[in-house]
Amino acid sequence: MNERPHTSKAFDEDLREIEAMVMTMGGLVEAAIADAAKALDMRDEEEAEKVIASDKRVDALEEEINTAVVRMIALRQPMADDLRLAVTVMKIAGNLERMGDYAKNIAKRTPVLVQGPPIMGASNSLRRMAKSVRLMLKDALDAYARRDVALAMDVRVRDREVDQMNSALFREFLTHMMEDPRNITACMHLLFIAKNLERVGDHVTSIAEQVVFMTTGSTPDDDRPKQDDTSTVAAIGSHGAGG
Amino acid sequence: MNERPHTSKAFDEDLREIEAMVMTMGGLVEAAIADAAKALDMRDEEEAEKVIASDKRVDALEEEINTAVVRMIALRQPMADDLRLAVTVMKIAGNLERMGDYAKNIAKRTPVLVQGPPIMGASNSLRRMAKSVRLMLKDALDAYARRDVALAMDVRVRDREVDQMNSALFREFLTHMMEDPRNITACMHLLFIAKNLERVGDHVTSIAEQVVFMTTGSTPDDDRPKQDDTSTVAAIGSHGAGG
Repeated sequence: MNERPHTSKAFDEDLREIEAMVMTMGGLVEAAIADAAKALDMRDEEEAEKVIASDKRVDALEEEINTAVVRMIALRQPMADDLRLAVTVMKIAGNLERMGDYAKNIAKRTPVLVQGPPIMGASNSLRRMAKSVRLMLKDALDAYARRDVALAMDVRVRDREVDQMNSALFREFLTHMMEDPRNITACMHLLFIAKNLERVGDHVTSIAEQVVFMTTGSTPDDDRPKQDDTSTVAAIGSHGAGG
Repeated sequence: MNERPHTSKAFDEDLREIEAMVMTMGGLVEAAIADAAKALDMRDEEEAEKVIASDKRVDALEEEINTAVVRMIALRQPMADDLRLAVTVMKIAGNLERMGDYAKNIAKRTPVLVQGPPIMGASNSLRRMAKSVRLMLKDALDAYARRDVALAMDVRVRDREVDQMNSALFREFLTHMMEDPRNITACMHLLFIAKNLERVGDHVTSIAEQVVFMTTGSTPDDDRPKQDDTSTVAAIGSHGAGG
């Protein structure tokens, strides 16, 4: 696997530059997730606005990365192993771009939530969930930079906890809505925010799996802990809805 | 743009084969969206199960396409224009894979919804929304196959209507929830389904924009009609929630 064609030195230099761009992009997305959660927690619309604005830079970086990868492939004409690395960089940039969208979407809901009273417990739960996915992202990017399979596998497992947090929040918020219809609008937005964070976890997991694949040449074979189970959840006491 | 290096004939043949795989994948995703909407409409859990199972084939096709593209790049060493076409095929396969996930997610919610009474008007609205995105997808794939920029631009504009349908549904369902808390669980799932369909529309729009880009070399410059406005919506009469 480590036998490289003669183009490899120039290719490796190009790849290193592009991976540095990915790390920059990853840092911006980490910050966007942290700031979106903070804005929500502090009910700070101005901070939320900054998160929304910052996503443009993330989108631009993805385009720069894709262009750089295509130029590198055209110029260095890499063979199989190097090509896989080149494709992986593009895919990871794609995952980061989507995470940026989710952070932006969370920030967009903040001004609406500020209009209503806080929902008990929501702030803590969402902050904890946001912290978990942010740390997963940080570790996934480290695993990518260091080609660290063990760390990547660890990130992948931690996505289960995020899915469980989302399921717990889903039940909790549905119950709040039933107890007091005035909570419905706020809980709706909080549920979409929790779902966005759960999806961020899925994209981090996808990065972790690409690190495993590019390093070992095979994907982890146990079932990917991707789907949360909220799609099949009914609220506590909601079976009355059947009557 | 049409001056091609000497590799182009073999490259064109490979690309045609891969694009045929993309069309197959697109057909499966179109069917998944239609069947998921039908299962929801008919409250047919068995049909929903089939949709969930069929997504495995969609995921497998994306992998086959990515592998074929990488092999093609390695073998034909295409230059700039051809490389752009190769990258576009992979991106479109990626969009289709995500749409398949959304169709699966819709199907997963059907068994829960069957437990409760139907929500008035929901079935019609969602069926209409599903039909719109399915036709958008069909046209986006035709636009891709025929390199038809005009059709791609038309698809892109139609995404606005889908976003508007989603916003209307969002307000409608929130109101249902407030009127009768027994509707909350069902409406929650219906809201996520509407959001999934809206996201399918975004991915179709992304395909349409890639068709424009690969054909004209530039992206449509007016703002992409991507985001729906539900993230900033409060339910009718919900300002009482502020009190």
